[in-house]
Amino acid sequence: MSRWEPDARGRLERAAMELFVERGFEQATVTEIARRAGLTQRTFFRYFADKREVLFAGSGALQEFMVSAVASAPDDAAPIDAVAAALEGAAGLLEERREYSRRRMAIIAANPELQERELIKLARLAGAIADALRERGVPDPAAGLAAEAGTTVFRIGIDRWHAEGTPRPLVDVIQDSLDDLKAVAAGK
Amino acid sequence: MSRWEPDARGRLERAAMELFVERGFEQATVTEIARRAGLTQRTFFRYFADKREVLFAGSGALQEFMVSAVASAPDDAAPIDAVAAALEGAAGLLEERREYSRRRMAIIAANPELQERELIKLARLAGAIADALRERGVPDPAAGLAAEAGTTVFRIGIDRWHAEGTPRPLVDVIQDSLDDLKAVAAGK
Repeated sequence: MSRWEPDARGRLERAAMELFVERGFEQATVTEIARRAGLTQRTFFRYFADKREVLFAGSGALQEFMVSAVASAPDDAAPIDAVAAALEGAAGLLEERREYSRRRMAIIAANPELQERELIKLARLAGAIADALRERGVPDPAAGLAAEAGTTVFRIGIDRWHAEGTPRPLVDVIQDSLDDLKAVAAGK
Repeated sequence: MSRWEPDARGRLERAAMELFVERGFEQATVTEIARRAGLTQRTFFRYFADKREVLFAGSGALQEFMVSAVASAPDDAAPIDAVAAALEGAAGLLEERREYSRRRMAIIAANPELQERELIKLARLAGAIADALRERGVPDPAAGLAAEAGTTVFRIGIDRWHAEGTPRPLVDVIQDSLDDLKAVAAGK
């Protein structure tokens, strides 16, 4: 018998993050996460396939969002500008979660298995953005290059956002990173 | 007792590639690879940690080569030009192995576990190139962006090299991909 638990997903996420920080990702168990959240293991598995997925649960939605932002960019937007629109939108989604995002990246950085998972998710994101560009009629290799460059700017922008002492809006940090990429590509 | 086997590494590599193509990567066993090469399993493990490593054995040497090319670029070279020098050098190393490289990528593309390994090796390559740029005094995020952009150009250039009906020198294809990246970043 299962009863409805208010905000079960959020409670599990917060409990997991606390335990990952306190004990390390590898040591924390699903049993402990559920207990800390005041829920059962069974409830945990209703929301997440395994404890790793707690850290990647948002990536599917983020990817869908970015793909539809690329698709709905103005017809005459250059590939890099369609990608920039997707990055801007994604920055808006993440803006309120800086502290969560920072802790999440620190946990991932401490664990090779999670780093691999993150690489795979980013490669998938780049692939989905490239497909969305091809749908717009962007030929290869421009579609792949713009998508990969955008994903790199996104990742490096987020790292920078976490690192800055005085937090700025993510959208501004990502815009700076995109400008830096343009300068680097132009041989500056 | 082990006796010296002439070109054992090359024989194992060729036998492994044949079997990966014939039977699929997952089905081929180390026992079969060694037998096909006319060698023992023990000899196989003297050269490779596991059958996956047959496909990635060259990546350490390639990385070292590219890092030292970045380090020895002229002092006044822009970051992207130091990276371009490394890509050019690497293209020269791979030039003679187009058919091997094409078969290798086809095997990797058919196996998710190998794709993950390839992503990890490429991320490591980008990290090593970024470190080499930092050694040259290139600040972040330019170092990370130039290294990631260069690794993307390298990967996409190699795919294109394999795909083209009339093979061109890899160095030319990579140069084209770099020009395409520059055009994309410039909003073309």
